[in-house]
Amino acid sequence: MHRTYSMRNNRAPTAQQVATPPLPPPPPRPAASSARAPSVPHSFRRTAAGSFGPEMSRKLAQLVKMEKNVMRSIEMVSSERREVAKQLSLWGEDCDDDVSDVTDKLGVLIYEIGELEDQFIDRYDQYRVTMKSIRNIEASVQPSRERKQKITDSIAQLKYKDPNSPKIVVLEQELVRAEAESLVAEAQLSNITREKLKAAFAYQFDALREHAEKLAMIANYGLSLLDLIDDHPVTPGETRPAYDGYESSKQIIIDCENALANWTFDTAAVKPTLSITNTSILEEGAAEAAEEEWADKEEAPVEEEPKTVVA
Amino acid sequence: MHRTYSMRNNRAPTAQQVATPPLPPPPPRPAASSARAPSVPHSFRRTAAGSFGPEMSRKLAQLVKMEKNVMRSIEMVSSERREVAKQLSLWGEDCDDDVSDVTDKLGVLIYEIGELEDQFIDRYDQYRVTMKSIRNIEASVQPSRERKQKITDSIAQLKYKDPNSPKIVVLEQELVRAEAESLVAEAQLSNITREKLKAAFAYQFDALREHAEKLAMIANYGLSLLDLIDDHPVTPGETRPAYDGYESSKQIIIDCENALANWTFDTAAVKPTLSITNTSILEEGAAEAAEEEWADKEEAPVEEEPKTVVA
Repeated sequence: MHRTYSMRNNRAPTAQQVATPPLPPPPPRPAASSARAPSVPHSFRRTAAGSFGPEMSRKLAQLVKMEKNVMRSIEMVSSERREVAKQLSLWGEDCDDDVSDVTDKLGVLIYEIGELEDQFIDRYDQYRVTMKSIRNIEASVQPSRERKQKITDSIAQLKYKDPNSPKIVVLEQELVRAEAESLVAEAQLSNITREKLKAAFAYQFDALREHAEKLAMIANYGLSLLDLIDDHPVTPGETRPAYDGYESSKQIIIDCENALANWTFDTAAVKPTLSITNTSILEEGAAEAAEEEWADKEEAPVEEEPKTVVA
Repeated sequence: MHRTYSMRNNRAPTAQQVATPPLPPPPPRPAASSARAPSVPHSFRRTAAGSFGPEMSRKLAQLVKMEKNVMRSIEMVSSERREVAKQLSLWGEDCDDDVSDVTDKLGVLIYEIGELEDQFIDRYDQYRVTMKSIRNIEASVQPSRERKQKITDSIAQLKYKDPNSPKIVVLEQELVRAEAESLVAEAQLSNITREKLKAAFAYQFDALREHAEKLAMIANYGLSLLDLIDDHPVTPGETRPAYDGYESSKQIIIDCENALANWTFDTAAVKPTLSITNTSILEEGAAEAAEEEWADKEEAPVEEEPKTVVA
């Protein structure tokens, strides 16, 4: 993890870091060039987003496009994963009964990972679309800021050129209206940014929690499938005892299927250990919830009602 | 999950499936064509592997190449994830203090996901290389099978053409030697395939378990970072109280870092529920281990000594 606890600047190295300087970065993997270099549509999507649209929303517009790239790449992993699952089963078909059955079942599990990745992408898209709505409010606030600035500039110019112009009064009235509009717009920006940012990352992290826990489950069931392979070494000419694991392997897949189907946020196994309680920073009314089990508090961000007053 | 519990054939539909036919597959995502279509190097790698080399090892050779594609795609996800992390932090920098701090810290967590993905790729490669060694033994066994077949054919031909030829005796002696060699080769194939298959998937699933549990942890810490954002809606003109979450957000990152660093297979949270015990199919001597906690049995496949007698 970043020792600086920030993505933005590199802090001065600590005494400990000076004493044991980090190893130089490993050389890049040799044959990686083809995949490492982002594809043409990926780079285009990303660069284009940074060059068009209202300036205020460009950084976020670029982020939204970059997230599209992440999604596309996960999609590719997912479809390649399913191909691999089929090929594994295909290879195993020519092998002895135990290897054939187990590789087929491993294929089922790996295919399932691909399916879960596909579901994850859909939920990741919800996150992305929610971030997009912040980009939209950013883009819509910019004209009101610009209008206010333009009127202010016109007044200053007129006062210098023709201090008694009757237009000054008109412009000053216009400025008051523009300022009121701008105050509303800024409050909207502030409220919506916060509401949507929280909702977006609650989507992303909830999707990730579910996806990750399910993957860990599949890996566990996969490991127990391996026990069905008879790896007792044979001597030349010796034949292996007949394979009788068909029922067991099928049962492992059924168990895995049930475990995946029954997973909920309440039964989530991985829990964080926090060394501080966040009571001070929770909104009023939610304070008592903080006393409760962390797992319960967890789901709050997705379920909470939008509370924007001026949206 | 595949209701047939097999990747190979589609079983006749069950009564329940006939009663409620599955929905037609969803239309493909509209703009996905650019990423869904495998890239040129990816397709080439895969097709080439299926066309060259000894026929016996082609299916597995293709699998090994396809796994390389999976690795390359995960690499792309990983590098794009890190780009996203930087961009998120960059966008947040212009926002209010709370949003700025939280997005920066979210960036740190997402960057860490990218780093973990990179580590996962290295361990996935171990799996791939282990599968490759099965491909190698398959390729090396083929010549001995072919030689045996060739001698058998020659003897049959000679017996038909010239039943009293003295060459028949010589060839029959040669056949006995070839059969002995072939018996050894087949035993090697049988032993090494099983040993390496178990080792390979133990690598993959152990790597996946660790990766997935760490991802779930990060998601949990990410969710608690979101609590630091003040999403109490403000009215136009109202200013938000000053942000005082810097210590809390830093502490969450430190807690997450410690949790990741302290993760071991013994502390793994996700455990499978098996409805059968595999005692019958475990090798002798390991039976008592099956009585123990599942978590302990888990690590056996990676640690176990290679037991090949004829390799």
